[in-house]
Amino acid sequence: MSKSIKKIGVMTSGGDSPGMNAAIRSVVRTCAYHNIECVGIYRGYEGMIEGDFKELNARSVKGIINKGGTVLKSARSNEFRTPEGRKSAHKKLTEANIDALVLIGGDGTFTGGLFFNKEFNFPVIGIPGTIDNDIYGTTHTLGFDTALNTVVECIDKIRDTASSHNRLFFVEVMGRDVGHIALNAGVGAGAEEILIPEEDLGLERLLESLRRSKQSGKSSSIVVVAEGDKIGKNVFELKDYVEANMTEYEVRVSVLGHMQRGGSPSCFDRVLASRMGVKAVESLLEGKTNYMVGLLNDEIALTPLEQAVKGKSKINKELLRVSDIMST
Amino acid sequence: MSKSIKKIGVMTSGGDSPGMNAAIRSVVRTCAYHNIECVGIYRGYEGMIEGDFKELNARSVKGIINKGGTVLKSARSNEFRTPEGRKSAHKKLTEANIDALVLIGGDGTFTGGLFFNKEFNFPVIGIPGTIDNDIYGTTHTLGFDTALNTVVECIDKIRDTASSHNRLFFVEVMGRDVGHIALNAGVGAGAEEILIPEEDLGLERLLESLRRSKQSGKSSSIVVVAEGDKIGKNVFELKDYVEANMTEYEVRVSVLGHMQRGGSPSCFDRVLASRMGVKAVESLLEGKTNYMVGLLNDEIALTPLEQAVKGKSKINKELLRVSDIMST
Amino acid sequence: MSKSIKKIGVMTSGGDSPGMNAAIRSVVRTCAYHNIECVGIYRGYEGMIEGDFKELNARSVKGIINKGGTVLKSARSNEFRTPEGRKSAHKKLTEANIDALVLIGGDGTFTGGLFFNKEFNFPVIGIPGTIDNDIYGTTHTLGFDTALNTVVECIDKIRDTASSHNRLFFVEVMGRDVGHIALNAGVGAGAEEILIPEEDLGLERLLESLRRSKQSGKSSSIVVVAEGDKIGKNVFELKDYVEANMTEYEVRVSVLGHMQRGGSPSCFDRVLASRMGVKAVESLLEGKTNYMVGLLNDEIALTPLEQAVKGKSKINKELLRVSDIMST
Amino acid sequence: MSKSIKKIGVMTSGGDSPGMNAAIRSVVRTCAYHNIECVGIYRGYEGMIEGDFKELNARSVKGIINKGGTVLKSARSNEFRTPEGRKSAHKKLTEANIDALVLIGGDGTFTGGLFFNKEFNFPVIGIPGTIDNDIYGTTHTLGFDTALNTVVECIDKIRDTASSHNRLFFVEVMGRDVGHIALNAGVGAGAEEILIPEEDLGLERLLESLRRSKQSGKSSSIVVVAEGDKIGKNVFELKDYVEANMTEYEVRVSVLGHMQRGGSPSCFDRVLASRMGVKAVESLLEGKTNYMVGLLNDEIALTPLEQAVKGKSKINKELLRVSDIMST
Repeated sequence: MSKSIKKIGVMTSGGDSPGMNAAIRSVVRTCAYHNIECVGIYRGYEGMIEGDFKELNARSVKGIINKGGTVLKSARSNEFRTPEGRKSAHKKLTEANIDALVLIGGDGTFTGGLFFNKEFNFPVIGIPGTIDNDIYGTTHTLGFDTALNTVVECIDKIRDTASSHNRLFFVEVMGRDVGHIALNAGVGAGAEEILIPEEDLGLERLLESLRRSKQSGKSSSIVVVAEGDKIGKNVFELKDYVEANMTEYEVRVSVLGHMQRGGSPSCFDRVLASRMGVKAVESLLEGKTNYMVGLLNDEIALTPLEQAVKGKSKINKELLRVSDIMST
Repeated sequence: MSKSIKKIGVMTSGGDSPGMNAAIRSVVRTCAYHNIECVGIYRGYEGMIEGDFKELNARSVKGIINKGGTVLKSARSNEFRTPEGRKSAHKKLTEANIDALVLIGGDGTFTGGLFFNKEFNFPVIGIPGTIDNDIYGTTHTLGFDTALNTVVECIDKIRDTASSHNRLFFVEVMGRDVGHIALNAGVGAGAEEILIPEEDLGLERLLESLRRSKQSGKSSSIVVVAEGDKIGKNVFELKDYVEANMTEYEVRVSVLGHMQRGGSPSCFDRVLASRMGVKAVESLLEGKTNYMVGLLNDEIALTPLEQAVKGKSKINKELLRVSDIMST
Repeated sequence: MSKSIKKIGVMTSGGDSPGMNAAIRSVVRTCAYHNIECVGIYRGYEGMIEGDFKELNARSVKGIINKGGTVLKSARSNEFRTPEGRKSAHKKLTEANIDALVLIGGDGTFTGGLFFNKEFNFPVIGIPGTIDNDIYGTTHTLGFDTALNTVVECIDKIRDTASSHNRLFFVEVMGRDVGHIALNAGVGAGAEEILIPEEDLGLERLLESLRRSKQSGKSSSIVVVAEGDKIGKNVFELKDYVEANMTEYEVRVSVLGHMQRGGSPSCFDRVLASRMGVKAVESLLEGKTNYMVGLLNDEIALTPLEQAVKGKSKINKELLRVSDIMST
Repeated sequence: MSKSIKKIGVMTSGGDSPGMNAAIRSVVRTCAYHNIECVGIYRGYEGMIEGDFKELNARSVKGIINKGGTVLKSARSNEFRTPEGRKSAHKKLTEANIDALVLIGGDGTFTGGLFFNKEFNFPVIGIPGTIDNDIYGTTHTLGFDTALNTVVECIDKIRDTASSHNRLFFVEVMGRDVGHIALNAGVGAGAEEILIPEEDLGLERLLESLRRSKQSGKSSSIVVVAEGDKIGKNVFELKDYVEANMTEYEVRVSVLGHMQRGGSPSCFDRVLASRMGVKAVESLLEGKTNYMVGLLNDEIALTPLEQAVKGKSKINKELLRVSDIMST
């Protein structure tokens, strides 16, 4: 990096997650601390192409550390997937004298950043922001911890009514390709079964397990299902199947949906976001590029952005076993 | 009432709601205060028929005032709808020396109580426990206030993500025949539109309203829909209709579901439950029967149970107007 | 009122309370709905004197319905207590073409408004915003319901640890002259005793009551104390007294403090604020002045501002009795 | 370990913390899973000496995963500190055929366990349960994460009112010898300054920092103070000092107190408790003793109990720097 960095752009992209605002705040204040200018890029790559920029100083980001969503908004951009789109974006950045980018988002966001860096040799650092925790190179993505708390609080409420009526509930949580939310929130909520994309339990074993639950004296049960569970049935089909095969239970379905993406971030996510923002800016200032900031062994560490995109985040198999033991 | 009351049975029935436990606690402690015995009847009328009873003293109900659900469980009983079923129930109560009943529940619960009183001249007092607020004779049923808070907290979270992405959300809340939850939570959550069973807005006016919202500079919108809204479409059909007719918005659906029934009761519901329990027991001790305890003009008052069942709770038209003005 | 109103100023003053933002939003949007201009006056009467004004339109108040505090800020002004100060304030209002005022606050705020109206014949309407619920002419002030939920949630947490250790806790809540918060939150939290300014229980009776609690099998106890309780001892002196006279308990103190003033408003407070804002603006437009908007018998109603200031809000004696019965 | 383990006792001791119940549940269910009997020992070492035991099966611990406090209660025992006391305790355990112990608590609890093991060769495994996070051998103690969320939620509320009134708040949080809560919650709550026992900032630097805050345009400020901060003044003395030296701010104090110990555990704490309980029981079954189960590098790992007691948990210096940068 021959050229020294004087102005950094920060952007959120992809699905929003709690903690993104805390990360934006951290990036902006770290820039201010190092006397670097900072520019907010609105609506992700779409706003980058349109030059939807705003100078941000330390005071611009006050009062946002505890807010869900993203004050920079987010959007998906098809145009940025084309070389022309990226060229336009680069032109806007250059016109605005932006020297480097902090990209807050997930796989898609980082892939865009890699293209951009390759084509224009533009310094980029990524911060993983998604509730799904499906990014390689960090044990926790921003928003994951908050989403888990949201889910267990919802299931606690559902359990109140489930146990009052001896009902069985299928609760669908987010996670199309990965079962992190289902697995952790399932254990946290004391679910009797957890169905995740990484494992095909099989409908027969599910029935067996529910029957065992009933026999062991449980009068109500919660089954947590990730959106993309491997049984290959959606949560309503599961309900029908179980009702057809088990008359012992009244079965109900609850799809938690988008509320999982919102809410005030947990302390964990706020602290993580603050640490990641510092590291992202200071890494750029040290001349580093194409890295993602992550949490590894409780330390903030860098992973090459390409690995972050190509790598697979893996679920904790120990937790599956813990879940089994807990449903005794 | 020639015979003096020495033992009171308390029961929850129908859909559970936050505050039922606080009401049970209040009934039990008011009995203890007056040196009356108290018996918990489990699983509603079903448990009454089976004699599923348990003596409760002041200490039995400690630590439950802040718990959702009902420690006495709830159930629906077809058998109680038959004269034979009620005869069995009466026999069990007599065998247990239970002299009078406090029934916590909704319309169905009270209807059962009326039959029972008519057939056996058995003293009964009702306490309205349901989140739907659809009972005549009280401005607030137990659980309604808590459910409203649950719903606005969920919608606050949904709005975080809605406004980050410029999306339109249809949020379905409980209320099959009545729009109380939708109307109050809709105003409380700052919804742009509220669709309730009592009013047919019409699909055209909905589109108009959403277009007006968009033009007035709103980048995201929340529409709150009661389960039983009059437009006659379910929430997913609404989504399809709007997406087909408005390309400006990405539309998403969220069905809040059963979590609305659970959770720790609000202070309002706990206080209301405590007041109602006292009034219910003391009314029985004063020889009153066939009444429902309710909140009217901020005072605890009695309404004949028959009126409570036959009367219609009405939505507050003023709130509809407030909602309209707020979506300016 | 000969002159028609074209521009309304809105202001918050005195201690802030949850729901003030929702009321501001409602005032602003009701103005927009009626095509009236609206101006935000910052920092109460201090900002009025300084002309710290900002035009507000329907979009200016988006996203604030669920926020605690007040976006218009609050302050206390000694200068406004002088005729000169009020003259300066009036001049600023006139220069800004403001025709009428909506004042959100408590007694002090309304007293200022009455003076102002008397001296300049300036139309004012008050909205009661304070957590203390100490205003005559409304059963609920804005923020009271939210504060009650905050307090019971805190006491629920304290009870977790109290009952794990068989401890006695004195929990001090806000309310210097009135016991509304202590009384309602005390009942809601299942407190064993509630000490309020309106009633002198006496130290001896407190000890007796705690001894009775202990004998009846309670292993832990919560005593809720209003700041201004009549026993005339602060909460730490109470602790010392009880520890000196009862060795059965370990005693601890918790002063909840200012967090009671903050937090996202409950649905109840948001709806109430929305209703009050509409009524305040529309009353001004109908030529009314010197009234306070309040909730009476569940209806929004006007009370002469002078009565609101001079009248005494009274605690609900029934609740004291309910509390006694509940500590059986 | 020549003798195989057939019955395990589980106990909580010392200050309670959220997650203790989840850990008890996990210990009990892991025993059930392995067909081992499990006995709950009530009120810590005191109850052990008195033989206050109860058999627990998988169903005994239902519905407690989300409850704060400890169903086994806690107490401090002076008698257990004497050889005679421990002899009595050992006798009771032997009479009840208890072969091994899982001890949930902090330093004091583990020290007792070490004595007990040394004197009677009794197998013990510790689980770190304390909100203070002051145990060597684990990055997170049970309850720490929950306490952080409790603290930031309280400070979020305080900030609402602080920023409405341009006030400075000193907020005292728990942590007599360690600043983990203050440091993490301070960063999470966006505090302007954080005062911890590990670092003597000095009163002068505090004033400077507050002056800088004011000059940089901040209108309100939060200073988080650990109970045992090094400046050597309590939080009320700090207030007086700052008020005497800075007239720019109105200063207020809030002592969060015991509510920090209670509340429903976060998902993080529930999952951690579940994992730790499994590991504790299975380690005993594998013949291990005198270990503490901890979280190290996101894995459940064992640390010799003696090290856990003698080692020092260290605060994360990086966070101090992050905090400095964030207050820019």
